[in-house]
Amino acid sequence: MAAPARENVAELPPTPLATPMSARSVRWDVEDGGAGLERPLLRQRGSNTTSQMAVVGVNVSHIESLDYEIVENDVYKQDWRSRGRIQIFQYQVMKWLLALLVGSAVGMVGFFSNIAVENIAGFKLLLTSNLMLHNRHMEAFLLYMFCNAVLAATAAALCAYLAPAAAGSGIPEVKAYLNGVDAHSILAPSTLFVKIVGSIFGVSAGFVLGKEGPMVHTGACVASLLGQGGSRKYGLTWNWIRYFKNDLDRRDLITCGAAAGVTAAFRAPVGGVLFALEEAASWWRSALLWRTFSTTAVAAMVLRSLIEYCRSGNCGLFGKGGLIMFDVSSRVTAYTATDIAAVILLGILGGLLGALFNFLLGWILRTYGIINEKGAPFKIILTVAISLVTSCCSFGLPWLSPCTPCPPELPASRCPTIGRSGNFKKFSCPAGHYNALASLFLNTNDDAIRNLFSGGTDSEFGVTTLLTFFVAVYSLGLVTYGVAVPSGLFIPVILSGASLGRMLGKLLGSLTGLDTGLFALLGAASFLGGTMRMTVSVCVILLELTNDLLLLPLIMLVLLIAKTVADCFNKGVYDQIVRMKGLPFLEVHGDACMRSLVAGDVVSGPPITFSSVERVGSVVHTLRRTGHNGFPVLEDEPFAPAPELCGLVLRSHLIVLLQGRIFTRDRVKTGAAEVFRKLAPFDFAKAGSGNGLKVDDLGITEEEMEMYMDLHPITNRSPYTVVENMSLAKAAVLFRDLGLRHMCVVPRTPGRPPVLGILTRHDFMPQYIRGLFQNVLRE
Amino acid sequence: MAAPARENVAELPPTPLATPMSARSVRWDVEDGGAGLERPLLRQRGSNTTSQMAVVGVNVSHIESLDYEIVENDVYKQDWRSRGRIQIFQYQVMKWLLALLVGSAVGMVGFFSNIAVENIAGFKLLLTSNLMLHNRHMEAFLLYMFCNAVLAATAAALCAYLAPAAAGSGIPEVKAYLNGVDAHSILAPSTLFVKIVGSIFGVSAGFVLGKEGPMVHTGACVASLLGQGGSRKYGLTWNWIRYFKNDLDRRDLITCGAAAGVTAAFRAPVGGVLFALEEAASWWRSALLWRTFSTTAVAAMVLRSLIEYCRSGNCGLFGKGGLIMFDVSSRVTAYTATDIAAVILLGILGGLLGALFNFLLGWILRTYGIINEKGAPFKIILTVAISLVTSCCSFGLPWLSPCTPCPPELPASRCPTIGRSGNFKKFSCPAGHYNALASLFLNTNDDAIRNLFSGGTDSEFGVTTLLTFFVAVYSLGLVTYGVAVPSGLFIPVILSGASLGRMLGKLLGSLTGLDTGLFALLGAASFLGGTMRMTVSVCVILLELTNDLLLLPLIMLVLLIAKTVADCFNKGVYDQIVRMKGLPFLEVHGDACMRSLVAGDVVSGPPITFSSVERVGSVVHTLRRTGHNGFPVLEDEPFAPAPELCGLVLRSHLIVLLQGRIFTRDRVKTGAAEVFRKLAPFDFAKAGSGNGLKVDDLGITEEEMEMYMDLHPITNRSPYTVVENMSLAKAAVLFRDLGLRHMCVVPRTPGRPPVLGILTRHDFMPQYIRGLFQNVLRE
Repeated sequence: MAAPARENVAELPPTPLATPMSARSVRWDVEDGGAGLERPLLRQRGSNTTSQMAVVGVNVSHIESLDYEIVENDVYKQDWRSRGRIQIFQYQVMKWLLALLVGSAVGMVGFFSNIAVENIAGFKLLLTSNLMLHNRHMEAFLLYMFCNAVLAATAAALCAYLAPAAAGSGIPEVKAYLNGVDAHSILAPSTLFVKIVGSIFGVSAGFVLGKEGPMVHTGACVASLLGQGGSRKYGLTWNWIRYFKNDLDRRDLITCGAAAGVTAAFRAPVGGVLFALEEAASWWRSALLWRTFSTTAVAAMVLRSLIEYCRSGNCGLFGKGGLIMFDVSSRVTAYTATDIAAVILLGILGGLLGALFNFLLGWILRTYGIINEKGAPFKIILTVAISLVTSCCSFGLPWLSPCTPCPPELPASRCPTIGRSGNFKKFSCPAGHYNALASLFLNTNDDAIRNLFSGGTDSEFGVTTLLTFFVAVYSLGLVTYGVAVPSGLFIPVILSGASLGRMLGKLLGSLTGLDTGLFALLGAASFLGGTMRMTVSVCVILLELTNDLLLLPLIMLVLLIAKTVADCFNKGVYDQIVRMKGLPFLEVHGDACMRSLVAGDVVSGPPITFSSVERVGSVVHTLRRTGHNGFPVLEDEPFAPAPELCGLVLRSHLIVLLQGRIFTRDRVKTGAAEVFRKLAPFDFAKAGSGNGLKVDDLGITEEEMEMYMDLHPITNRSPYTVVENMSLAKAAVLFRDLGLRHMCVVPRTPGRPPVLGILTRHDFMPQYIRGLFQNVLRE
Repeated sequence: MAAPARENVAELPPTPLATPMSARSVRWDVEDGGAGLERPLLRQRGSNTTSQMAVVGVNVSHIESLDYEIVENDVYKQDWRSRGRIQIFQYQVMKWLLALLVGSAVGMVGFFSNIAVENIAGFKLLLTSNLMLHNRHMEAFLLYMFCNAVLAATAAALCAYLAPAAAGSGIPEVKAYLNGVDAHSILAPSTLFVKIVGSIFGVSAGFVLGKEGPMVHTGACVASLLGQGGSRKYGLTWNWIRYFKNDLDRRDLITCGAAAGVTAAFRAPVGGVLFALEEAASWWRSALLWRTFSTTAVAAMVLRSLIEYCRSGNCGLFGKGGLIMFDVSSRVTAYTATDIAAVILLGILGGLLGALFNFLLGWILRTYGIINEKGAPFKIILTVAISLVTSCCSFGLPWLSPCTPCPPELPASRCPTIGRSGNFKKFSCPAGHYNALASLFLNTNDDAIRNLFSGGTDSEFGVTTLLTFFVAVYSLGLVTYGVAVPSGLFIPVILSGASLGRMLGKLLGSLTGLDTGLFALLGAASFLGGTMRMTVSVCVILLELTNDLLLLPLIMLVLLIAKTVADCFNKGVYDQIVRMKGLPFLEVHGDACMRSLVAGDVVSGPPITFSSVERVGSVVHTLRRTGHNGFPVLEDEPFAPAPELCGLVLRSHLIVLLQGRIFTRDRVKTGAAEVFRKLAPFDFAKAGSGNGLKVDDLGITEEEMEMYMDLHPITNRSPYTVVENMSLAKAAVLFRDLGLRHMCVVPRTPGRPPVLGILTRHDFMPQYIRGLFQNVLRE
């Protein structure tokens, strides 16, 4: 093995800051850097203190990088050369078919979970309100609290024992996956199961959380499961769809899945596409737009026909299958200066409170991290505790609200409503009266939002009611997010924003010509802008929910202001969570510190390299000794006069070659033909995450260890390389835009070893770089 | 100057197809390749038979590449190091401010051109219908024809003499620009002027063409003009917005402008963003989504308030400022199998007829190319001839249509309408009757579309009427596009599609529950899908026009089918035109032939290189002798023991350095300090297209010619490089995804010249590559 001395890096032309701080150890698919990296949410367990670990859901998981580069080796070339028109057509058809399958599956899941929530929560609320009707208030409270606690405990137990990765929103994890960070658990079938069931139980338990974020994660999981042809672990495999051999195709499918998730959550197909584009995906191309849109359209159509089916009352006690769908419309086409001023005020408020929400959420997540770290029982206790607090708030606060007489124009069947969804809840009030706070608290979140958004009902909720609700929901939303149940952030944010907006509308009263329902909508938009910092997708989702495009200018304005204000304080909530979880996310814009450095400054060398015809024993030992994923292959004597870079070989391909036992006694080239005689190109296909052979399972004999293997057929002959004095900022652009996993650094001057090291995702993390040069890079 | 021999390329490891065909001449910012390249639309004039020429509008223009790489030289580093927080903030504010300025400007232009068309065309139609009312039919016809011919001739004369680049839709040119192809004329101020005025005259002249495509081009022109701080040529410069120094920022702004153009044309802000994303832009990032959306929102708001202002009748005889805005809605929420079958049929028809349209259009454009090539008078004659044909059709065909009695439920003021816009045109009919064909032909195109889309008026147009109109519009749309006036394709396509769709709806009659107006809308969607192959953006534009999101599933379905069917036959109309015009467009997916080749196969060497401290005379002579834009700089003795690649230097920077006369008597490094003493970083900013210094204007004396200049400060030290045996397909991915202009090819083995050549955009054109290896690469 070639082992270039570390010192030759010092021959670099001195850049202002290029002073290596310390001798660094051999390292490359990075997995190092402990000290310099920002401490993730949880202290890492055991002896593994490397950044190969990150928090996924609520547990620490092993992470790998994904590789979107085309591995151009002989196997690949042979494979595509052998493909005829039919195979290419089949491939195209499969891509489309799978996308549409994902769309329908996600649509069905969205419908199912919605019906389940409506029935479970509806049944719970019916029992409670029946007891209330007979004035058995204490019993009602206890029953309500007990139901919630049981549901919450079940959800938490599922999450804690079966799939810790299913906790939380899942959007940060999906975002990281689409950026190229893989942890087996992110998209595993168990995660999918717990995400669906846990989300149903969590929402039914009356928590202030949504099923929208979890739907996005669910969509991604479904796409992943279908994309890798089922799960071998659970004996669910469909060979006919085992078609996608690489991370690139899977990434596209998972992007479609995430978009379909948004669609299933909001019935917003265009919004789903834009969400995937704006928030979820790190890479995008025109062709994907088209496929994603088809996926979301299918999801929307499936959802719509199922809802039609349920309208006839076939879906249980409560299930009408209606997701949130509002009926706000702005018939006002000209706005006064007061209207605009009110909207601007709302935007600023949303921005400030949204930024505060993000700040507090970070703090709470760190605290919860310490509790969750103690083990599964603690997770469940925490969840139940929060559930009890939520129950107390929901049931206790309405007592503070006086009973309001029903609007005289409404029939008795619409006010007060008992045990059904509706605007006016009777609670403990006499006949003909309703309790405004109960109408918001003792209801599913979807119904509460519908109530807040309802137009033409200016007097339904008073200012105090709305203020109480706002404070309660804002705080409960914060403390709920970190518990070990699948929990989305959309609903708490929309609820807080809508109550604040409606309150502002009430306060302004006749000063503006806008409806209070419209104010609630704008408030929700401003909070969404302030926390999530999404603009176009939120705007379009809200437009699709209200089905009135004339609202666009106002929603845009409020979003623009809220985002701009909030951006002055901190990052969007998902970006913040990604960072806190220690997921190595590649940002679009590299850190400023990269501009002062060159690639040679951060690369650690010398790398472990293989000779183009290498001893089997040496390969096996290296694979056992390190966790690295890519190894440079050098062409040396007798195949080349001086060592030169032949290419890059992947761990998984080496293992396949070892398993195929394509060895020779002497150090000679065997060539590709020998490989194809024993192995098919599909054997080299990348296994789904978490699967794949291990080097210890191969059982190589001592005799075989002394033989040689020819790496030429599996060597990627065209790895992307940069010269050592390439600016690190530009190397980062190359690395990210092309979605690489490894980038070889080659020397500038001749007479040096042909490869100085390999840059990976972790080498571009600002924390790592700043840690390396902490004496020099200050800010 | 280092001059490595061409032969050393032959030392490459033989790849299957790597057999250089012929000794190629020194060449790199490419500008070569005549024979191998597909013949552009027009035969190229004069002696310049290189691919530096392409058809822009209707004339052949010189084209350059744009450069989106960050030129990391000392000047750049000095510049960003010196920037404080205030400068960065100012830069951000300027970016936003300019985007919003572009939005309002484009909104105003859109409004203005719409009002102008309504008034000019309205006045023309009023005169004609007054004559018709007095039964002076022949006079009416002659007047109508004369008005049209004069308007057409004016538009054509403006186009032919003032700005040939303004002819046609402009979308292909904008698309090429955003892909990195620059011709001064594409976005020049004269083009902007002619595009607006010519488009108004063209549309008023009754041609079957739209102002939507030209609006996109107008938006891009406005953005370009503002982005480079006005036009020096016309004495319109605003120094405070002279802020964007590079192609990257200008590209972003022009993307915003194109999106605003769509918004101004259709009042569709979300559709505008998606159009820019799906069709116009080649590079996209999240931040741009947000800025583009703000631009389109501003454009939409400006447009909307101006239209409000016009509602009160302040905008002339006809101007109500209403762009096309339909009132179709689908109250049907469940579709029968017949409905779906009808929609599928419509999709297939749209796909077939759309593909046929593209095919015929290509043929017609080639024919017109020969006529247009003969000179400006021929262009005008062709335009007037087509105008006469159009007039004859519009005025003649209605005579074939019988008079229909007005629907009894309508008041006399609504049927028949005389001289106003409206559904029922009297033409030559007696009182109480209307002429259906005249209602479509003798109307502005916007009104005709509104008529076709109108719901609840099933019996207004008969099947024969619709068939006649369809055939006429389809053919006229085809023959109109290539004439020398600004002409969009949206309107002819929508008109043909809508008439076909409505006809199908009529034929199916009571078999479906869908309205004929809805059928017209779906027909338009299917034709748009079949010709333009846009999906998401067309879908959203139609949704925004109708303001009914419940139509989404049907529109999606029809678009999907139409696009899929049409894709079996040919490419989208804009892609086809880009290719016919010979614009070197970089596709997302490289050609299949690239997979068999390596970078060394297509690069032509040896390149012209400079020494890091070069003789002034040598630089000046090289700049005079060649048109190349980038030159590798080699570090050689006494600055390095052996020649090594120092970086890449740009022509424009060399000229600035020459103008600054930073010369020394001896061959020594002067360093960056000397440069900064005489020049500011802004002096190196890239001039707007068409501007910039020329080497002949510098007046270097004979004595100065013998001096030396230090190129280190202006050398980009981190050019992107690939090794000669890098697969060409992967090199193409790198080139396109990073938006490069030059990519250095370096040798694999030591002991060779440090750079073998430079790859540019033209080297990745499939035609060029296939031309090089025509004996081997067959398909």
